[in-house]
Amino acid sequence: MSEKLESVKIVGAGLLGTSLGLALRRKGISVLLADSSKTNLRLAIEYGAGSAEIETEPQLVVVCTPPETVSEIIANELLSNPNAVVTDVASVKQAIVDDLADNPNQTRYLGSHPMAGRERGGPASAQADLFFARPWIVTPTKETDSKNLDLIRQLVDLVEATWIELDPMEHDKAMAVVSHLPQLVASLVASKLAATDENKLQLSGQGLRDVTRIASSDPELWAQIISRNSHQIAPVLSEMSFRLAEIAAAVSDIEAPGSLRAIHKLISEGNQGVSRIPGKHGGKHRGYQTVTVMVDDKPGELARLLTEIGEIGVNLEDLRLEHSPGAQIGLAELDVLPTTAQLLISELQNLGWRLA
Amino acid sequence: MSEKLESVKIVGAGLLGTSLGLALRRKGISVLLADSSKTNLRLAIEYGAGSAEIETEPQLVVVCTPPETVSEIIANELLSNPNAVVTDVASVKQAIVDDLADNPNQTRYLGSHPMAGRERGGPASAQADLFFARPWIVTPTKETDSKNLDLIRQLVDLVEATWIELDPMEHDKAMAVVSHLPQLVASLVASKLAATDENKLQLSGQGLRDVTRIASSDPELWAQIISRNSHQIAPVLSEMSFRLAEIAAAVSDIEAPGSLRAIHKLISEGNQGVSRIPGKHGGKHRGYQTVTVMVDDKPGELARLLTEIGEIGVNLEDLRLEHSPGAQIGLAELDVLPTTAQLLISELQNLGWRLA
Repeated sequence: MSEKLESVKIVGAGLLGTSLGLALRRKGISVLLADSSKTNLRLAIEYGAGSAEIETEPQLVVVCTPPETVSEIIANELLSNPNAVVTDVASVKQAIVDDLADNPNQTRYLGSHPMAGRERGGPASAQADLFFARPWIVTPTKETDSKNLDLIRQLVDLVEATWIELDPMEHDKAMAVVSHLPQLVASLVASKLAATDENKLQLSGQGLRDVTRIASSDPELWAQIISRNSHQIAPVLSEMSFRLAEIAAAVSDIEAPGSLRAIHKLISEGNQGVSRIPGKHGGKHRGYQTVTVMVDDKPGELARLLTEIGEIGVNLEDLRLEHSPGAQIGLAELDVLPTTAQLLISELQNLGWRLA
Repeated sequence: MSEKLESVKIVGAGLLGTSLGLALRRKGISVLLADSSKTNLRLAIEYGAGSAEIETEPQLVVVCTPPETVSEIIANELLSNPNAVVTDVASVKQAIVDDLADNPNQTRYLGSHPMAGRERGGPASAQADLFFARPWIVTPTKETDSKNLDLIRQLVDLVEATWIELDPMEHDKAMAVVSHLPQLVASLVASKLAATDENKLQLSGQGLRDVTRIASSDPELWAQIISRNSHQIAPVLSEMSFRLAEIAAAVSDIEAPGSLRAIHKLISEGNQGVSRIPGKHGGKHRGYQTVTVMVDDKPGELARLLTEIGEIGVNLEDLRLEHSPGAQIGLAELDVLPTTAQLLISELQNLGWRLA
């Protein structure tokens, strides 16, 4: 452990910057805030996320501006804070490393990507606990001075995030698959709904809702993210496009030899793929059993159910609520370990709950 | 109201057939069960879903067999039950109408599609309440004798499902968009994960989980569904394929004029589309506000939260649980009406809950 982190400068008082400021102020860190928007800056300061001036020189600068502006601002901050480590929170990392390749100060830069956000942006949506228990990825390169890692590790500890170290290119390749691909595909399916009859949409089930939930993301932000990571996304998307064309051809000529087999293979491979997504606690997907309970749609009913589950002593691994169109009742889908499912089912039935 | 429904024959004692039998037996209806598998049949009878013989002639036959066998079985049942109305529960409807086009008994057939199911199939997964509060679509044609509708309406009422009437072709067109397209796309994204490094998958967020959840569906069943509705799915899929190729081209050449605009347009149209999916109670999406609360990952904590929300008197419109890899704490995302969000936030904070 080298020097103790005591003063941080945050550039960009949007959702992430303001949330970070709130979290650090709560731990007694001096926070200097800067934003090109006077309104955002004033709002963030009034929220208690930091000050427009601080007494000590910042040891760490965190750039929290939109992706397309990040590299230039990092370069400026490296220049104007000759003793500070500089990081950022952008969700694409290699492009920044490339932009800084000729910068003599690049050893003091270390990229990071806290996997946190909200559907709404801006300082008014900020929350001191935005980073709590979320992954915070740091992306050192061979240029990175390892003692700089320590200041950022202190930052990550202070906001109670989970530290993950990755090569910047590996990070971007991973994001192309686990984040950027699903975003584009969800938007594509949702865009089809923009021109779909309302009476057809009345038949929407939970499947469609799940597939399209992230399609409500911000277009400005995502155009920048996709643009900054286009090298990694392009091959993934081309492969998807090629495979979708194959499937579309199979469906168009379903009687042709191999068409049905292609569809069966697609769904089977999807089974395999989805089973590999890690479950809760970062562990393997443990094959939870789902117990579905009917819950009257009024305040307190779901609470009563969960109180009684707590009394039974069974831990919920996950919980989803589902409503049918027109129904005044909801279905609570409870994921539990298979070893506890039978106990839960029989106890809930004894207590008079209706299981679906 | 014509004759009262008192006896039903169910062909196919899988998940849907057995569940239907259980629901009808609970209401005192005579249920005759049939299945080509002696094991399934015996299991369903032991479960109490019906009998291998009943005293009265069935007024209604419900065919609950896999999609590819349905039309032939319907034709047989029309022949061997000359006074009965015959329906089925397959999720594709026009192909059956086409198969029966030359059948002199087609006036006694009326298709239906209960939108209910579980991840697990087979009679052992059956539940008497499977259809409860779920949409049950019936698809009359101009050949349908309207008095036959009444028997099926009684069936739908008995199982407490929600009645929806649609033209068979309109039904299939709607399913192509709201069910079959999302299934194929979810499987496509998930199939990519089958060949993705495990350390990349460790970075999976809720977005990827949502997009791929339905990719765990049964390949046999889905190959049949896609095959039976290929005429309606093909144009939707071709359009998707064309649009994905456009987006892939834009990402591959992101510096080209119009590339960024194409991505921005896609995400914006996705915003519009997802906002058109009806929310809870079949109404419009009402723009809920999300309040995120941190919940210790131990039995009873979520219950305590929901009990206190019940005491505050705020109704939850939806609830999601989210876990970060490695974290022993969960985030409960509560959707509430915007008018009640501020009350909920301040009361929860007063009670000592940490909001994210």
